[in-house]
Amino acid sequence: MGQNKKKLSGVFAPVVTPFSSDELALDDLRFNLRKLNETDLAGYLVLGSNGEFKSLSNKEQIRVLEVFAEEKGNKVVLVGTGCESTRQTIEKSKLAFKMGFDYVSIITPNYFAKHIDGATLQRYYTQIADSIDIPVLLYNVPGFAGGVTIPPQTVLDLSKHPNIVGMKDSSPTGPAKFLSCLDPAEDFHVLAGSANFFYPSLHLGAVGGVLSLANSLPDPCCNLYRLFTQGKYNKAKELSFRLARLNQAVSGSWGVAGAKAAMDIIGFKGGQPRHPLQGLTAQAIKQIKQAIINEGFMSA
Amino acid sequence: MGQNKKKLSGVFAPVVTPFSSDELALDDLRFNLRKLNETDLAGYLVLGSNGEFKSLSNKEQIRVLEVFAEEKGNKVVLVGTGCESTRQTIEKSKLAFKMGFDYVSIITPNYFAKHIDGATLQRYYTQIADSIDIPVLLYNVPGFAGGVTIPPQTVLDLSKHPNIVGMKDSSPTGPAKFLSCLDPAEDFHVLAGSANFFYPSLHLGAVGGVLSLANSLPDPCCNLYRLFTQGKYNKAKELSFRLARLNQAVSGSWGVAGAKAAMDIIGFKGGQPRHPLQGLTAQAIKQIKQAIINEGFMSA
Amino acid sequence: MGQNKKKLSGVFAPVVTPFSSDELALDDLRFNLRKLNETDLAGYLVLGSNGEFKSLSNKEQIRVLEVFAEEKGNKVVLVGTGCESTRQTIEKSKLAFKMGFDYVSIITPNYFAKHIDGATLQRYYTQIADSIDIPVLLYNVPGFAGGVTIPPQTVLDLSKHPNIVGMKDSSPTGPAKFLSCLDPAEDFHVLAGSANFFYPSLHLGAVGGVLSLANSLPDPCCNLYRLFTQGKYNKAKELSFRLARLNQAVSGSWGVAGAKAAMDIIGFKGGQPRHPLQGLTAQAIKQIKQAIINEGFMSA
Amino acid sequence: MGQNKKKLSGVFAPVVTPFSSDELALDDLRFNLRKLNETDLAGYLVLGSNGEFKSLSNKEQIRVLEVFAEEKGNKVVLVGTGCESTRQTIEKSKLAFKMGFDYVSIITPNYFAKHIDGATLQRYYTQIADSIDIPVLLYNVPGFAGGVTIPPQTVLDLSKHPNIVGMKDSSPTGPAKFLSCLDPAEDFHVLAGSANFFYPSLHLGAVGGVLSLANSLPDPCCNLYRLFTQGKYNKAKELSFRLARLNQAVSGSWGVAGAKAAMDIIGFKGGQPRHPLQGLTAQAIKQIKQAIINEGFMSA
Repeated sequence: MGQNKKKLSGVFAPVVTPFSSDELALDDLRFNLRKLNETDLAGYLVLGSNGEFKSLSNKEQIRVLEVFAEEKGNKVVLVGTGCESTRQTIEKSKLAFKMGFDYVSIITPNYFAKHIDGATLQRYYTQIADSIDIPVLLYNVPGFAGGVTIPPQTVLDLSKHPNIVGMKDSSPTGPAKFLSCLDPAEDFHVLAGSANFFYPSLHLGAVGGVLSLANSLPDPCCNLYRLFTQGKYNKAKELSFRLARLNQAVSGSWGVAGAKAAMDIIGFKGGQPRHPLQGLTAQAIKQIKQAIINEGFMSA
Repeated sequence: MGQNKKKLSGVFAPVVTPFSSDELALDDLRFNLRKLNETDLAGYLVLGSNGEFKSLSNKEQIRVLEVFAEEKGNKVVLVGTGCESTRQTIEKSKLAFKMGFDYVSIITPNYFAKHIDGATLQRYYTQIADSIDIPVLLYNVPGFAGGVTIPPQTVLDLSKHPNIVGMKDSSPTGPAKFLSCLDPAEDFHVLAGSANFFYPSLHLGAVGGVLSLANSLPDPCCNLYRLFTQGKYNKAKELSFRLARLNQAVSGSWGVAGAKAAMDIIGFKGGQPRHPLQGLTAQAIKQIKQAIINEGFMSA
Repeated sequence: MGQNKKKLSGVFAPVVTPFSSDELALDDLRFNLRKLNETDLAGYLVLGSNGEFKSLSNKEQIRVLEVFAEEKGNKVVLVGTGCESTRQTIEKSKLAFKMGFDYVSIITPNYFAKHIDGATLQRYYTQIADSIDIPVLLYNVPGFAGGVTIPPQTVLDLSKHPNIVGMKDSSPTGPAKFLSCLDPAEDFHVLAGSANFFYPSLHLGAVGGVLSLANSLPDPCCNLYRLFTQGKYNKAKELSFRLARLNQAVSGSWGVAGAKAAMDIIGFKGGQPRHPLQGLTAQAIKQIKQAIINEGFMSA
Repeated sequence: MGQNKKKLSGVFAPVVTPFSSDELALDDLRFNLRKLNETDLAGYLVLGSNGEFKSLSNKEQIRVLEVFAEEKGNKVVLVGTGCESTRQTIEKSKLAFKMGFDYVSIITPNYFAKHIDGATLQRYYTQIADSIDIPVLLYNVPGFAGGVTIPPQTVLDLSKHPNIVGMKDSSPTGPAKFLSCLDPAEDFHVLAGSANFFYPSLHLGAVGGVLSLANSLPDPCCNLYRLFTQGKYNKAKELSFRLARLNQAVSGSWGVAGAKAAMDIIGFKGGQPRHPLQGLTAQAIKQIKQAIINEGFMSA
């Protein structure tokens, strides 16, 4: 098994950024990481969507990265470094490399969505991967990227670049279309970006997943991956259904605010998202708690 | 295994309607059915999207149904009967029942897409299922239905109706979201509506698929289902990838015109779609042929 | 002024089809037409979206047309004849001609929306216009047509066909993009399909409008057109705002059901839409009534 | 006429940011501003979409602002200051105030598009407008903002805030829906964000426009506004058509790269957009030049 495949296999938590009165709450972040370090998680994604990276200043992003550098334990760390311009993304990726992280996960540029086609993305990712020493994961997430999606042929072409080693796919359809096109000879690995399609993606060759729910329920998420690797498919299917339904009730309905509320319920430090997003109402929190109980991940 | 589950398990061909000079070519339809009758297909969908039902007059639709009544062999037959109004759909469904077919597959009404919400769909399908004696399959296909999609909760509610026995899902995401919500105690069965997600859907509990490619390549489609039921997952995955890629090159790129061109290449009678759709250019046909060869379903 | 321009100038009502217990209520239709005949409306659109043509059987459509043939008074009548196939549309258009109506308004085919491009639409409308003797209006309505929209270049090309004399545009952006492209030398006329953009479209050269609100409030709609033709732009702007806001509260919020409720409130016979659509709740009707009062079209 | 109305009336150029070998080319910016200062433009939008603000680092943004502070002449200057979080936007807006600019134009936050509803936007803009001393313009541009659009009711509510004095609308439908809802008693002013609907918006009460074409063709854009104010509507309509068609051939087809190419053709310093966007091919530039000639804005 290639080094990248080994490091990318399993479940990653796209770690949230806690705030207190709209200020960074880095002690809460340390608290969460120390608890997560004790789980079977393969690693972390820092400065991802759930990390509200777009709502952090440059300085704040560096402070968050510093906490990860100190608290990452033995986990593999992916850093979200995608900006709107090639040069910004390169600069941020170089910083991630310098700080000792393992991979960068680079969202598609998207402000000028109408003009970001396959050729543009090909040029973008190639130029970046040529310029940096840290291995690159493509990040495909049309829902956060104004509808921009990487065409399968572009993924196939980019997968041959020696420094582009995988992708995270969070499109609503899941990575089936990419997995069917990839050349198995390449050291290129796909992570499913949602509990909605994590389990079936494993059957198609995905090596792991970046699951919002892994912030609050890392053990069931890791258990699903383990059941799959052990060939216990019926149990895996049932657990997948429970996690998918819960994911819909948490992140599907409420986004980052829901992920953070679930953390608070379970005993992590989630808190509220940064303005203009808001924390949930008491009623919404109650619904999430009930959903966690209903799916059997907590006792009433 | 319930009677419906047994009858709905496996691969169905959404049979195309052949034309000659824009007129119904029923002899070509008979030719195709006789060849398909010799395969392991579970059955047929008649008057579906691939059957260009919206381009047929009422009289033509009846003539097509008559051919199926005569030529269906021992296959299970699903009839597409969805119209824009409840009364039209009931009338057409009653005809399907009277002619001895097995199921009706009912597309969501969609002309007033903005106003077709879950409550409207609940009322629509319930009123129909209450009024007819032939069992009902929901048909969810936002791509042909102006974006209308049945909410998972509505599917769950409708699945409890004794005369609603399943659904065909052709949404781009596939039926994962429905399968995770269904009550396994109900006799309700899900068919995947595309080779893109047929194989992973089987791992989630789908009982079969309605696959456009089954018009031209029924044997590989049936083989994929067989490999799954035999637990030969690696072989199944590889075959699924080949079919998914081919499906993209045929129906994904060219719609019904592509499905018909593939039939002509393989030895069925596809012909051209009805105006304003057009048959493919010689170059596009050549591309499809090459894709069939590349995926190993035909020798060069 | 060309004959078509003269006939197409002003306000048209897209006449609703009344039902009673889900059956055609043709006496109610007669009642409405006789009242509308006394207004300054330029004419009627029959079997349009507001006429729920997709929910009527062929026989019912003919019965509706027969009522119009008898009751149309001196109004210009446009008939919606667009079907999914070229041959069906031609057949229905020939019937409209035979029955003595003035124009056919032909919606874009759209079931296979992804494959209905400019070239297909060019071929579709040309083939139809070549085959019939009644003049053709293009009908562009992406919201009811699965997102299909006629490209401006296609409109420009089709505008040169001697039997294609205009278009009705109900796209959310309004017909500005078409009006800026048309060749003023051609006898081709644009009708705005919504009170949302009727008034500004007149400033760009539209000759009239097909306004849902003309079913219930024909006089204010005609008054807006008159104020424009008289150059009373400030008054026209204010009236346009009142009608646009009311249109949002009626058809924008509730579709055909709203248009029918407004008719009942004003003294026409609207009734309920056909299933699966439903009539409005008492509360929604009250809101519509209040909106009519607020905008000054009825006393409290 | 209120002070804001006076300052916001007329045509604004959303000034592009020139680059040379992907580095800021501030001398080119000075060159452009000095030429534009001699026109009748009402003012400038700096750090807008055409300014590629998302592709500039914080330091680069400040350097651009410094050039505007020096070179703005007697023009009114709007600064784009919208970020993803409330606090970032406030900070950037305070800087704009401190540097002596006139207005901030604040795009909707949109990374978590699904969760940015009317209430969130209401809270967002209110909190910002409460915190800063520079007057605020809302900026509604679903095409660059992942589909987020400000609901008309939210615009109406925000228009009553003493420090929210207007909006720039670049939605495809244009600002008709907003203009019809606004309270004429408020000092709230609407700028049309596209030549596609600038002229009809003036008839509905818009006070001016922010027009991409004003970077290359400021005089015709100003002339259109003048013709409107003089009541020369036929000439205005014809000029509006020419500008709308050209706008489609330039920014509509090619975005910022097109706007910059048109500048180079006319004699401004446009250059290339920043990577991953690219400059146009020689053929595309030739097409744009031909379109400018065809519309009569340049001799062949």
